[in-house]
Amino acid sequence: MPLAELILSGDIRALARAATLIEAQTAAGRELSKQLFPATGKALTIGVTGAPGAGKSTLVNSLIAAYRAAEATVGVIAVDPSSPYSHGALLGDRVRMLEHHADPGVFIRSMATRGRLGGLAATTMDLVLLLDAAARQVVLIETVGVGQDEIDIAHLAGVTLVVLTPGAGDDIQALKAGILEVADIIVINKADLPGTDRLHEQIREAQSLIPGDQAPVCKVSALRNEGIARLTEIIETKKHAANTETWEHRLRMKLRDDLLSDLPSGALARHAQSVSEKMEDPDSAIMALKAELLKQRTNGH
Amino acid sequence: MPLAELILSGDIRALARAATLIEAQTAAGRELSKQLFPATGKALTIGVTGAPGAGKSTLVNSLIAAYRAAEATVGVIAVDPSSPYSHGALLGDRVRMLEHHADPGVFIRSMATRGRLGGLAATTMDLVLLLDAAARQVVLIETVGVGQDEIDIAHLAGVTLVVLTPGAGDDIQALKAGILEVADIIVINKADLPGTDRLHEQIREAQSLIPGDQAPVCKVSALRNEGIARLTEIIETKKHAANTETWEHRLRMKLRDDLLSDLPSGALARHAQSVSEKMEDPDSAIMALKAELLKQRTNGH
Repeated sequence: MPLAELILSGDIRALARAATLIEAQTAAGRELSKQLFPATGKALTIGVTGAPGAGKSTLVNSLIAAYRAAEATVGVIAVDPSSPYSHGALLGDRVRMLEHHADPGVFIRSMATRGRLGGLAATTMDLVLLLDAAARQVVLIETVGVGQDEIDIAHLAGVTLVVLTPGAGDDIQALKAGILEVADIIVINKADLPGTDRLHEQIREAQSLIPGDQAPVCKVSALRNEGIARLTEIIETKKHAANTETWEHRLRMKLRDDLLSDLPSGALARHAQSVSEKMEDPDSAIMALKAELLKQRTNGH
Repeated sequence: MPLAELILSGDIRALARAATLIEAQTAAGRELSKQLFPATGKALTIGVTGAPGAGKSTLVNSLIAAYRAAEATVGVIAVDPSSPYSHGALLGDRVRMLEHHADPGVFIRSMATRGRLGGLAATTMDLVLLLDAAARQVVLIETVGVGQDEIDIAHLAGVTLVVLTPGAGDDIQALKAGILEVADIIVINKADLPGTDRLHEQIREAQSLIPGDQAPVCKVSALRNEGIARLTEIIETKKHAANTETWEHRLRMKLRDDLLSDLPSGALARHAQSVSEKMEDPDSAIMALKAELLKQRTNGH
């Protein structure tokens, strides 16, 4: 049976193989994504993002348990900036997630990001669509950080949770401001700790400066499994289907990654050398590289 | 006098005007960058990055004071993910930096990132080169976060400080692993707090997993201005000039941003709509968008 059909039939080994093909950005992976696209659009996709130390992995773990208790199949994509260690001892949180590894109803994929030449968000998108086509009813996307990647990834999810935690320092303000607008739900994790009310107040103040509807704030303690049922209720009310605007973001991001991978090998190094020797300025180098891209494409590559 | 000459002569109002032209990604800004490029390469450029809450802005403030005491002219570029608020009341740290605002030896630029369609790191690069050409002897680049943008920005600096702080939670592990490799110096800020020794030990463990030379660890308390003189000494020993590899990173990043800005308006929205209606799959949309880019470029745009 072709791989696409195996995936649609729920075969887990086929799913794992497909995820590898897609993560490696192979032609076979792209062809598969194409075949599976019509079967997408049914999963509840939940983005979980926010500051380091907020307990995102613990929250993801609690959400897995909640959706499994409701007999939904779950897929998890953990986007992890720490590639070389992601399977090692350093990531305690990731290890905790392993408790679900024996359950065939939970499919977990950890994406390494180190050494990637872009393509992180684009590949994550293809993995989300894969899990969706593979009839995972809930797909959780966990990202560490608050940069452009996380904002890109927010556009991949039908509902985005931004996780904050009391007492995480002054810069939490900068975080909140940058990421509040992509939040469908703001989760205060570790809400049993002191400082929760003050954080809630700060969120309200920051939200008052943003036009439009305010994301609801939901207090949980993922570690104690408190507030999770209420959170899943709120998720149901805030989820939204991908629309044209969502797809504009996704296509822009995918195109950006794609164009760079077309660059003829050697060209970049050649121009980098001439710029570093001040034989060429950066802007002229960019113009020349664009011309090479064009030439290559005209030749049918 | 032409703008480029005014900048080279140290005119501050000309510098401010040029920074605005470059930040807005105008043709005049690009032309200016080109003219000024031969005058670059003299500044000590210091990247300051790390987790939220690590006290990066306070550290930048201490470094400004230290370099001003040595009579160096200083430029600061603060890359701030929280655009709408960067000049508002939320960012206490940014406001603290204002104490240097009256000093003409300190030029500070805060770059907003919200709403940008890419181009953050590329524009930051052009601003760094501008300040360098404008004879700022020290250029500090402060970034909040730990994503791809920050790694891109690390390639803009002659020396990169990664700022960590004791007791910032378990996820600090993920941070460190992702960002350790771009660090020339690891700064433990707030080193008067408990947990400093444990953090130092964790850094050593993480470093032992990475091949090559280990970045030195420097303990400071930026708020109390302790350890800053020692830090500037270490910076002198670790700074390195931009080489071919650095320029490969920079050109790749600039090219990525540039290509997207060539996209014909309307094309993206049109394909986004057809994908959201499942009339087209994402990969076919990307192929079609690339063809439109090609067509436009062949027509001489």
